[in-house]
Amino acid sequence: MKVIRDPGKLSRLLKKPSFKGKSIGFVPTMGALHAGHLSLINQARKDNDIVIVSIFVNPAQFGPKEDLRKYPRMLNSDLVLCSKAGVDFVFFPSVKSIYPKGYSTYVFVEDLSNLLCGLSRPGHFRGVATIIAKFLNIIGPCMLYLGQKDAQQAVIVKKMVEDLNFPVKVKIMPIVRQDDGLALSSRNIYLTDKQKVDAVVLSKALGLAKLLFKGGIRDTARIISRMSQLISKKQAKVDYISIVDLKKLEKIRKINQDCLIILAVKFGNTRLIDNLVIKYD
Amino acid sequence: MKVIRDPGKLSRLLKKPSFKGKSIGFVPTMGALHAGHLSLINQARKDNDIVIVSIFVNPAQFGPKEDLRKYPRMLNSDLVLCSKAGVDFVFFPSVKSIYPKGYSTYVFVEDLSNLLCGLSRPGHFRGVATIIAKFLNIIGPCMLYLGQKDAQQAVIVKKMVEDLNFPVKVKIMPIVRQDDGLALSSRNIYLTDKQKVDAVVLSKALGLAKLLFKGGIRDTARIISRMSQLISKKQAKVDYISIVDLKKLEKIRKINQDCLIILAVKFGNTRLIDNLVIKYD
Repeated sequence: MKVIRDPGKLSRLLKKPSFKGKSIGFVPTMGALHAGHLSLINQARKDNDIVIVSIFVNPAQFGPKEDLRKYPRMLNSDLVLCSKAGVDFVFFPSVKSIYPKGYSTYVFVEDLSNLLCGLSRPGHFRGVATIIAKFLNIIGPCMLYLGQKDAQQAVIVKKMVEDLNFPVKVKIMPIVRQDDGLALSSRNIYLTDKQKVDAVVLSKALGLAKLLFKGGIRDTARIISRMSQLISKKQAKVDYISIVDLKKLEKIRKINQDCLIILAVKFGNTRLIDNLVIKYD
Repeated sequence: MKVIRDPGKLSRLLKKPSFKGKSIGFVPTMGALHAGHLSLINQARKDNDIVIVSIFVNPAQFGPKEDLRKYPRMLNSDLVLCSKAGVDFVFFPSVKSIYPKGYSTYVFVEDLSNLLCGLSRPGHFRGVATIIAKFLNIIGPCMLYLGQKDAQQAVIVKKMVEDLNFPVKVKIMPIVRQDDGLALSSRNIYLTDKQKVDAVVLSKALGLAKLLFKGGIRDTARIISRMSQLISKKQAKVDYISIVDLKKLEKIRKINQDCLIILAVKFGNTRLIDNLVIKYD
């Protein structure tokens, strides 16, 4: 496994004849890798000749008051995990090499970026779309792997890839959860012991929603209200709970199609997200 | 020479083994080809194994009150010119295939897009950056050819390519002019006979600016004032005349570096642009 810092070096390397015709699977991450990331890497390993993982805490997707500085960075253990998982290249660029002085080009997916998480994190998805566009150009993968955990991100990146005709296929891998149901997230390490227990309520609330749906309830306001009640029993502040369609992420009133139940909730200063796809029929 | 309409078909074609390792030169145009375009095509022909010309009147770069509808379309004569110039593929997509229903991703180069032509054409350069990004992804060329005539466009596209790490080299070809000095433009066909004569004043004004510079004048306000006076003798309405640096396109007060003298002037409803690079030393 090789660790490469310079974007130009990586591009040039991948253009060498020895890589001609080989399929490249790309897994973008911000590091602090957990079993969720590893599920993407493992899938990429199965599907491709070459697997590239990027580790880059992307400043462009953090707001001024967000956790850019304290976001967990643990390169050494990340590299061990990548190596064990059979990664070929870890791309670990400096911020300066990605956003040099005078950087000014951004990719924006309208509509999808200004709702749900986009409301409390303005600019976030512009930063996401931009970094993915850059990495796709640097690496030129056949396959891009993203996690369903970041559902809105997955929809936006898929839309960007489609709209801008990037020659890459996007594969979305399911959420990986702890035994107690908590979705894995690099931000879970911010949680106190009590919050870790409390945060299990998110997957419980999603489970409740599914149960209500299976019980015949189609009214989304009613489902959301019940989820909200459950979460409010914990020391938690709901940012949003929404039931939306899978493509436009627009709120729906009645469940009469496949849909996404999606939420963001703060435990102390730690904002967690989770979601569940409901299959209609 | 093949004419291809479907973006997916073109991408798939270019991925075939017979194109492996071949260099592709790409000339994006809006059709109504003239000797300016042909200079790009000829250069692309010299530099590359494969030459692809796109002909696409890009709605995203026209404002609601602009000339999208009446913009000259002359596919048949364009194809003859392309064929004679040794073009391999003409990419002539439909608007629907490029911007399908629900299209929502845009590429924006900040700062550079909101000045000069960007002031009177809001959204224009966003449309330009977006379509070029799409075409680069569809075609995957090694070389991209643009004309210096659209100086701001050239700077913006170069900046986008650099910022987003597109694996392509950009070559800017000089302005092609009529014998009388008028810069070739597809929009020149809008001009009445009188306007055609009047519009020669643009290159004359640029020539005057160069003369003043050579005569030792460094004060840009003074140079612009003299240009303005000259142009005002004709039935013309100056949109802007600016002297700017070559990278950021910011106005400079004194010429103490290489710079760009750039202008947009309306003759009746027809807005023409022209420019001249001044080498300092």
